[in-house]
Amino acid sequence: MTKIRAAVVGYGNIGRFTVQALKAAPDFEIAGVVRRSVPAETPAELAGIRVTDSIADLGHVDVAVLCTPTREVEKHALECLAMGINTVDSFDIHSSITALRRTLGEAARKAGRVSVISAGWDPGSDSVVRTLLEAAAPKGLTYTNFGPGMSMGHTVCVKSKPGVKDALSMTMPKGDGMHRRMVYVELEPGASLDEVAAAVKADPYFASDETHVMAVPSVDAVKDMGHGVHMVRKGVSGETQNQRFEFNMSINNPALTAQLLVCVARASMRLAPGAYTMVEIPVIDLLPGDREELIGRLV
Amino acid sequence: MTKIRAAVVGYGNIGRFTVQALKAAPDFEIAGVVRRSVPAETPAELAGIRVTDSIADLGHVDVAVLCTPTREVEKHALECLAMGINTVDSFDIHSSITALRRTLGEAARKAGRVSVISAGWDPGSDSVVRTLLEAAAPKGLTYTNFGPGMSMGHTVCVKSKPGVKDALSMTMPKGDGMHRRMVYVELEPGASLDEVAAAVKADPYFASDETHVMAVPSVDAVKDMGHGVHMVRKGVSGETQNQRFEFNMSINNPALTAQLLVCVARASMRLAPGAYTMVEIPVIDLLPGDREELIGRLV
Repeated sequence: MTKIRAAVVGYGNIGRFTVQALKAAPDFEIAGVVRRSVPAETPAELAGIRVTDSIADLGHVDVAVLCTPTREVEKHALECLAMGINTVDSFDIHSSITALRRTLGEAARKAGRVSVISAGWDPGSDSVVRTLLEAAAPKGLTYTNFGPGMSMGHTVCVKSKPGVKDALSMTMPKGDGMHRRMVYVELEPGASLDEVAAAVKADPYFASDETHVMAVPSVDAVKDMGHGVHMVRKGVSGETQNQRFEFNMSINNPALTAQLLVCVARASMRLAPGAYTMVEIPVIDLLPGDREELIGRLV
Repeated sequence: MTKIRAAVVGYGNIGRFTVQALKAAPDFEIAGVVRRSVPAETPAELAGIRVTDSIADLGHVDVAVLCTPTREVEKHALECLAMGINTVDSFDIHSSITALRRTLGEAARKAGRVSVISAGWDPGSDSVVRTLLEAAAPKGLTYTNFGPGMSMGHTVCVKSKPGVKDALSMTMPKGDGMHRRMVYVELEPGASLDEVAAAVKADPYFASDETHVMAVPSVDAVKDMGHGVHMVRKGVSGETQNQRFEFNMSINNPALTAQLLVCVARASMRLAPGAYTMVEIPVIDLLPGDREELIGRLV
């Protein structure tokens, strides 16, 4: 079997877990890891893996797994697609997903390649469950409750603010789909907590949620990458009221995101040119192996 | 908007709820209901709906929703496909799904039409969740626990046995994906409970589960069509152990089956010719409406 050659672009939390997920997948080989700057010493877990600052150095690449901050996704995706490389990302600004899908869809079709956007667990696998539950009971309400847990996207956002040395953004469920953001920051010397707090609260990532920003001496000491989801829907199937559904997860956040990125990287090899979100991909295409065997076992 | 013209084939429990789900769907019109024999008096809920014993009487039909017993699905599907009509069914003998998919796939491709098989909640929406969870944590175990609730397929199976006037097959969860079947039968005069019990226990529907068959004076007095699912997976994402997932439902069984049949009938209009199970269909195709609006709202 020819393996899918994947490059990992960006080597923060998601990048590290993506390398692990690619190693564990039977149908992938790692073309290399692309970093902004290549450190003098390669970390032990990357032994035997090419590390470079340009994806062009990696020879043929089927798919680039973009593990950069969300706001750099579009730029990297456009570069990769123009080079004839499929891309997958976990872009997580919900209000900008359809715009990104249009931009990358156009670039992907022009290049004859595939871009899967906003793949991870939310947006991502949660979106698949939300859509499925709306099909199962078209009239009704779905509440997605997150946490308690560390939000990667929100944490990266806080880290980008001036005066912040390190940060942790925790998502706390208040119930009925309402959340509180508890933000822990380690400040640069001389930085003002008030100014950091104002910058965080004004960001679109935080603007619609109750947000509290606190200074701590060490972010590392309070960091736990576990997360959770509690999704509920009560709705109507046909004319029948009171159909109840519930989906729960207790997971390591970057590990699940990375695993799902690898799954959509696989699916990208089976799709017609264009840009897709996870709800547009048959779930069977997320898995390796023979289709009939999978259907016999899972359906 | 041109509405999708659907025929309902078979008018037992699933057929009744399918008529309700079609009435509630904004993008469907009911071409008619096909019954083995047309009763002299039309039931009130079918007022204004053509009832016939042949689908050929109904003019143009886009899709036939097959609400017949599982074992008659293949025959009806082949007839409809040969007439150029898409079919959807809730065929529920798990061990025969891949064989049915092959047979109907060949017929569908020959006719340039689509057949969606084994759609409902299990097989069906549960299969989508099972597949998604295996993608999220590829190494691990999923347990699907059913009930307590009435199994439609098992009940129809018991009703087909000689000597049975009416029946109810209840599925009781024993935990860890193990089940007990509690079968309540109203016997024909002179029928032997021992013979009925032996016939039931020998059937493939029941052969692998602990099954108890009891006679009751009235099946109607003990019938409740609620059902439940409790699905759990604990697995590994990449190299990260102990990822936990849970999916629960408490639902009216035929109402949910019928709703999902209507959803796949909609999806059948968007698929390339062939036969599909629900895991092979993007979940977004289950919903009516504009794709970008759905993505903006659900992803």
